[in-house]
Amino acid sequence: MTERLVVIGADATGMSAASQARRLRGVDELEIVVFERGGFTSFSACGIPYWVGGAVTARDELIARTPSEHRERGIDLRMRVEVVEIDVAGRRVRARDLASGQESWTAYDKLVIATGATPIRPDLPGIDAPGVHGVQTLDDGQALIETLEQTAGTRAVVVGAGYIGVEMAEALINRGYSVTMVNRGSEPMSTLDPDMGASVRAAMAGMGIEVIGDAEVTELRTGADGRVSAVVTAAAEYPADVVVLGIGVRPQTDLARAAGLPLGTQGGLRTDMAMRVCGYDNIWAGGDCVEVLDLVSGTQRHIALGTHANKHGQIIGSVVGGGYATFPGVVGTAVSKVCELEVARTGLRERDAREAGLQYVAVTIESTARAGYYPDAGAMTVKMLAERLTGRLLGVQIIGGEGAAKRVDVAAVALTARMTVEQMITLDLGYAPPFSPVWDPVLVAARKAAKAVRERD
Amino acid sequence: MTERLVVIGADATGMSAASQARRLRGVDELEIVVFERGGFTSFSACGIPYWVGGAVTARDELIARTPSEHRERGIDLRMRVEVVEIDVAGRRVRARDLASGQESWTAYDKLVIATGATPIRPDLPGIDAPGVHGVQTLDDGQALIETLEQTAGTRAVVVGAGYIGVEMAEALINRGYSVTMVNRGSEPMSTLDPDMGASVRAAMAGMGIEVIGDAEVTELRTGADGRVSAVVTAAAEYPADVVVLGIGVRPQTDLARAAGLPLGTQGGLRTDMAMRVCGYDNIWAGGDCVEVLDLVSGTQRHIALGTHANKHGQIIGSVVGGGYATFPGVVGTAVSKVCELEVARTGLRERDAREAGLQYVAVTIESTARAGYYPDAGAMTVKMLAERLTGRLLGVQIIGGEGAAKRVDVAAVALTARMTVEQMITLDLGYAPPFSPVWDPVLVAARKAAKAVRERD
Repeated sequence: MTERLVVIGADATGMSAASQARRLRGVDELEIVVFERGGFTSFSACGIPYWVGGAVTARDELIARTPSEHRERGIDLRMRVEVVEIDVAGRRVRARDLASGQESWTAYDKLVIATGATPIRPDLPGIDAPGVHGVQTLDDGQALIETLEQTAGTRAVVVGAGYIGVEMAEALINRGYSVTMVNRGSEPMSTLDPDMGASVRAAMAGMGIEVIGDAEVTELRTGADGRVSAVVTAAAEYPADVVVLGIGVRPQTDLARAAGLPLGTQGGLRTDMAMRVCGYDNIWAGGDCVEVLDLVSGTQRHIALGTHANKHGQIIGSVVGGGYATFPGVVGTAVSKVCELEVARTGLRERDAREAGLQYVAVTIESTARAGYYPDAGAMTVKMLAERLTGRLLGVQIIGGEGAAKRVDVAAVALTARMTVEQMITLDLGYAPPFSPVWDPVLVAARKAAKAVRERD
Repeated sequence: MTERLVVIGADATGMSAASQARRLRGVDELEIVVFERGGFTSFSACGIPYWVGGAVTARDELIARTPSEHRERGIDLRMRVEVVEIDVAGRRVRARDLASGQESWTAYDKLVIATGATPIRPDLPGIDAPGVHGVQTLDDGQALIETLEQTAGTRAVVVGAGYIGVEMAEALINRGYSVTMVNRGSEPMSTLDPDMGASVRAAMAGMGIEVIGDAEVTELRTGADGRVSAVVTAAAEYPADVVVLGIGVRPQTDLARAAGLPLGTQGGLRTDMAMRVCGYDNIWAGGDCVEVLDLVSGTQRHIALGTHANKHGQIIGSVVGGGYATFPGVVGTAVSKVCELEVARTGLRERDAREAGLQYVAVTIESTARAGYYPDAGAMTVKMLAERLTGRLLGVQIIGGEGAAKRVDVAAVALTARMTVEQMITLDLGYAPPFSPVWDPVLVAARKAAKAVRERD
């Protein structure tokens, strides 16, 4: 008997799930219907800053697979059709064709919710003025590029200084704009501790990017032409020919909430390790609309990242397709860059550790990403947290030049394996002068952290 | 009462040990005497290819700490003095001043053997001719640079195609030489499997570096001026204005052997986890003259690498200084590059796995070091071995463009933690388009390896 799988959302999670399920089960076994309210499938939102900045030259390079390519693989993909209700008891969804407005019910045997996240868009005067742009969808990117090409001015203000914010700052610099960032927190990159964030701010100042901290935007002022002209805070006003919003996202779970599905404290769907929505045998969810287990702190967190979304989709597709796979959780790894500065983090910040009730030591070391005598041996700062008494690694933050950021992966694996910093000292990491000092900076940090653990008690 | 620590050898292990012991114990507690037969201390032999190639401009950049700097720290450093005998029963060493030829005995309470390794120098006709160079010491490097600067020719032959060989090939290319490599094995980089070695050879051919495989050198021919003129094998003759020997090294354990200390099957000293020579309470050894435990195969191996030598020295110094530290072993990580090609390996090759009696699956995947749409997303090949049935990761080999090699560290940590490839699939590695595709290449390999493990049985 043919089962029907319905997937809501055709981006990373949805289409990875649909594709993997299709690989495992043929069209006579499993019918796959995917609803997508937008106009694109399987695109890289993470790539938008590099498209805007000009490193990626064409929009379509960001599209991993088009609707027609998915359809050729036997997936019934319905574009610009929005699911507006999930009837859990009736095992069906109500969908609206956005062009015609027509609605209809579609029954499912299995359902995948991959509705992603919604950018936070504060209800401010002027928020909808021309020249104010979000950067979540390809349409957003296209609109911003058109604005940049058509605007005479060269002053950009980025609201928010997280990953998207700093990546957009780089893109705007590459476009020849002067960039001011207006940030609610005291330091940029709030996923770092403030001391590391301050170093990022100082480095950005050296690139000509001013980051205004502790600044709450109260208004987006518009000029006589109706276009945005300035970003206003309680303390000051920042002239702007273009404004980019990079304030963050929240899980898009309106449908799920209305259907009574379980949500966590951060607003994301709760799932088990096989990505099944808790309490529901035939509903899965993944990507930016779910919460994930933080393996370091044991808490549930919402982390919107393409790499998790793809893994979730792969796992859901395997399970729906009759296989077995699980997602044990995350350790909170993220990497980014602003021009020449690389930034990375994994595990817990000091604040996270305190909130989780963990006592810790924190150390910071300075080193270089290559042997000190090798050309372009950029400076590199590593901050490391370890649990008191046990010495278990709790987190690592890195800022530095080329070759710095991906070193965080060593800590990500060590966190997953619940290694102690003492164990990390003798890790057999790759050494040659073009790649590392003879003591890899992560090991230097581990050595200092282990010493701090020993001396603390 | 003042104890006396005697250290034989003033390079990475010896001086790390002496320095760390000095940090922990003052001059009134511990007298430290170091004998060094050469003229330098604490230098980076690994940096010599980059000095010869011109990336490092001055010899002294490769010297981490000079003899006088060590002496200022309270270490009695005796340069150009060679230890010629260890009297284990009498707890003393006999040393010869190389300038005067005078010999004398020095008693020790604790002894550190850090005699390093000796380059293999086959007994061939012409091996001592002008124009034939090894590259182990700073004097070697200086002599080679002088030859390169004074030689009219532009044809270089490198004998041996391991790490030193390929790094020297890059250096010579950077010096404007055409380079031919003559190698005993069928493929370069014998620390890789032959299939990966063949890819390295193909890439090197693209750089204009010809690698002749299965070639045993029978003679170094000299010209009328007495200088080397060609490298001769059974099959052919390769004209050479300069010849660099990069054949490998063997542990320098003549002193230890004569003293009756325990050696392993690969000729290195055998130690326990605290780097004490097995069976001797007051003798330590580390660096290129010892064998280390391979944590993946459980065997003892000789691996001459500066990163291990430094760790050993640190550990020995801590123990001698009254602290506690251990060296659990290695997983066999190494990274290198030839011009734009990065090469890395960790764990077991297919041959190692077979020799260790392990059954395995091996998979190879192609990916890119950055997101495919990001500029300079160099191709990257990852080969992964996993044990049959258990799925335990056994080894990884990587070749690729910028950003490829240090990814091997993820596998190094996973090997240390004895992870399975199935566990590796969901590792939370750093993702952003400038740093990685959304599925990191190492995870793509893990996914394929896990599938192979499942399907194999």
